[in-house]
Amino acid sequence: MSKNESSRGAVRERKEKVLTSLQNLGERIYRQIIAGEFPWIKMPSRSINNILYDQKLRQYILGNRSVRRSSRNIRHIRPLTQLIWTAMFVNDLTRQSKTSTLRDVFYSAQAYEMSFTDQQESDNLITDLETVIGYSREDFNVFPEERSAIFGDLTIEYTIPGYEGRRLNLTSHPDGMMIGPALTGAEFIDCKADKVIAIEKGGLFTRFIEERVHIKHKALLVHTAGQAPRATRSFLRRLNQELGLPVYIFTDGDPWGMHIAMVIISGSANAAHLRDLNTPDAKWFGVWASDIVEYKLPSDKLTELDIKRLHELRKDPRYEGKIWSREIETFMRIKKKAEQEAFSRYGLTYIVDEYLPAKLEMADSY
Amino acid sequence: MSKNESSRGAVRERKEKVLTSLQNLGERIYRQIIAGEFPWIKMPSRSINNILYDQKLRQYILGNRSVRRSSRNIRHIRPLTQLIWTAMFVNDLTRQSKTSTLRDVFYSAQAYEMSFTDQQESDNLITDLETVIGYSREDFNVFPEERSAIFGDLTIEYTIPGYEGRRLNLTSHPDGMMIGPALTGAEFIDCKADKVIAIEKGGLFTRFIEERVHIKHKALLVHTAGQAPRATRSFLRRLNQELGLPVYIFTDGDPWGMHIAMVIISGSANAAHLRDLNTPDAKWFGVWASDIVEYKLPSDKLTELDIKRLHELRKDPRYEGKIWSREIETFMRIKKKAEQEAFSRYGLTYIVDEYLPAKLEMADSY
Repeated sequence: MSKNESSRGAVRERKEKVLTSLQNLGERIYRQIIAGEFPWIKMPSRSINNILYDQKLRQYILGNRSVRRSSRNIRHIRPLTQLIWTAMFVNDLTRQSKTSTLRDVFYSAQAYEMSFTDQQESDNLITDLETVIGYSREDFNVFPEERSAIFGDLTIEYTIPGYEGRRLNLTSHPDGMMIGPALTGAEFIDCKADKVIAIEKGGLFTRFIEERVHIKHKALLVHTAGQAPRATRSFLRRLNQELGLPVYIFTDGDPWGMHIAMVIISGSANAAHLRDLNTPDAKWFGVWASDIVEYKLPSDKLTELDIKRLHELRKDPRYEGKIWSREIETFMRIKKKAEQEAFSRYGLTYIVDEYLPAKLEMADSY
Repeated sequence: MSKNESSRGAVRERKEKVLTSLQNLGERIYRQIIAGEFPWIKMPSRSINNILYDQKLRQYILGNRSVRRSSRNIRHIRPLTQLIWTAMFVNDLTRQSKTSTLRDVFYSAQAYEMSFTDQQESDNLITDLETVIGYSREDFNVFPEERSAIFGDLTIEYTIPGYEGRRLNLTSHPDGMMIGPALTGAEFIDCKADKVIAIEKGGLFTRFIEERVHIKHKALLVHTAGQAPRATRSFLRRLNQELGLPVYIFTDGDPWGMHIAMVIISGSANAAHLRDLNTPDAKWFGVWASDIVEYKLPSDKLTELDIKRLHELRKDPRYEGKIWSREIETFMRIKKKAEQEAFSRYGLTYIVDEYLPAKLEMADSY
C-alpha cells in the first residue's frame, strides 16, 4: 500500500497550509498599515461572466477578472472589515480545533459587535474568504448541517483533540459512520478495499451493507444522502487521490441523479473558486436511461420539470462526454425515469447479485 | 445498573413477539379457510373520528370503532390480499434479518405480481399491517430513509447477522453513530451516562461533543435531525424505559421546535395505532420563548405561518400543560422566535457553559 503510506500526514499538512494562508492574509494587512497604506485586498471575481469550464481540470474555474476592496473607498470599509473579522474568527476556530456552522458564524459576529444585516451577508463573506485564501470553509472548520455516511474496510486515525492517535475501522458500526468534522479530519492508515461505491439512497446503502458488498466487491460504500455535501465530495476525492481507489457513483435514473454524479465528478459552478472538491475520474454507472430499457425497470413518466432539466444539461459543457450525451438522448426518447429501488421488482438482492457485478465490469471498459 | 442488567434480551424478546404476531395472523387466516369461512380480518379504525387523546397514556390512541375486511365482499378482496402479501413479505424480511424501505416494498410487490396502483397504496397497507399486529414497521424491518445519530458512553451489542455478539461503545466515532437498523436492533450492555439530551440541530450536536457535554454532564447526546424519525423516537423511549435515563429535549425556540419535542413526548396522531414510540416523561427544556426574553437572544419576527401554528397548538390537548401553555402565550406576546445557535451571540461555548447547566437544574424541578 504505497499510495497509502504516503497519505499519512496529508490532513495535518493541509491544515498547516490553511493556517499559513490565514496568517499571510493577516500579515499582508499589517504590512499595508505599517507602510501607511489604506489596507486593501484583491481576489478573483465570482461574477457569472468570470466562471469558465476548464476542460483540462474538468471543473469550473474563475477567469482572470478580479475585484479589489480597499478601505480608501468608503463603500468598501464594511465588507473589508467583515472579511478580516471572518478570517480572525475562523483562524481561532481552526487553531482551537472547534467547528462551527454558517449559522453560528452569523450569530458569533454579534459577540464582536460585528454586524451582518442577515445570514446571506455573512455567508457571502465566508465565500469571499474561501476565494481569498483558496480553501473551502470545511478546511477552516465551518461545516454544513448535512451529514452523509461511509462503511467499509478502511482504518482511520483521528486528529481532533481528545481523539488524537485513536484509530477506528470503518466497519465498526453497520449502520454506517457519519462523515462529519472528525472523519473529514482523519488520516488514512490502512485500507483493504479496492474501490469506492457512492450511493444516493440510504435504503440502498443499508441493503449493500447487509448483502456484504463491502466484502464481495472489496468496496468502501458511501451514502451521499442525495446531493453529496461538500465534506463528502472532498472525502471521496481523498479516497481517490490518496488511496488510488476508483470511485463509482450510483444514483436514481433521472436528470437529478445524473447531476448528483456530475457534481461529484466536476464540481459545481458556485464552487468555481475552489479546488479539491471534485473527483474527475469518478464514474457514473447507473441507473442509466438505457438500464430502464435493458432491465425492463418499473418506471415513471418524466415530468415537464424533468424534461426542462434535461434540456439544460444538454447545453452544459460537463455533459458533452459520450455516456452523458447518449443517456440524455435516451431519457428524451423513452420519456421515463426509474429509481434505484426499482430493481427490487426482481427481488431484493437482484441489484447486488446481478446488476452491480455487470456494471462494475462494464465501468472498467469506458 | 440493575435497570441495565434487566434490559439485556429486550430486543430479542420484542422480535420474537413481532414474529409471533405475524404467525398468529397467518394461522387465523388458515383456520378460517379450513373451517370453510371466507377469510376476514378485523382491525381498529384509523379514521379521524376514532383518534382520541388519552390523558393517562399521554398519547393519541385509537377508539373502539373497528373495520372488518372480508373476502366475501368483492371490494375487500384486493386490500385483504395485499395485506396478507405484505405480512408474508415482512415476515420473510424479519426472519432473514434483512431490512427494507417503504419504496422497496412497493417495488418488491411487483416481483410477486401483487399490484399496487402507487406507493401511497402500499404505504397504507403497511400502516394497516401495523394496526393489525400492533407493532410499528421498524419492528418488522421496514425503515425510513432518514437517519439521526447518537454519541455517548453506552456500550451496545449487535444482534444483526455478521455482527451478533459484537460490542461497540457509542463514543467510538466523534461525529456520532447513526441510528439505523443495526443500532435500533442492538441490546444495551453498559451505560455510564445518567441522562439523555436530544438536540434538533446537527451543528449543535457536534458542538456538544466538542465541548464534552457527554463527560461534563454524563449525557448521551442524540441528534434528532429535525423531526425525529420513528426509529429514533423508539430508541429514546428505550433509553428512558430500559435504562431509566431522563430525556431532555432541546430545539429551536419556535412552534416547530416545540412540536419536535412534543412528538417525542406524546407521539403523533397518525401513529395513534401504535405504542412504544413516545417518551411521556421526556422534558422540553428550550429554547423557550421566555429564554428569548431572559437571555436577550438575537431573534426573528414570527411569520404569519408561525402564528397560525401557535393557534393550532393552543387547541391541541397535548399542549395543555403548564410550561407549554405559558410558552405559547409568551411566543404570542413577544412575537419573536430564536434558533439554538442564537446563543453564539455570547461566544461559542456559552450555551454549554452557562445555559445548559441552568436548564438541567431547572428541569428537575418541574
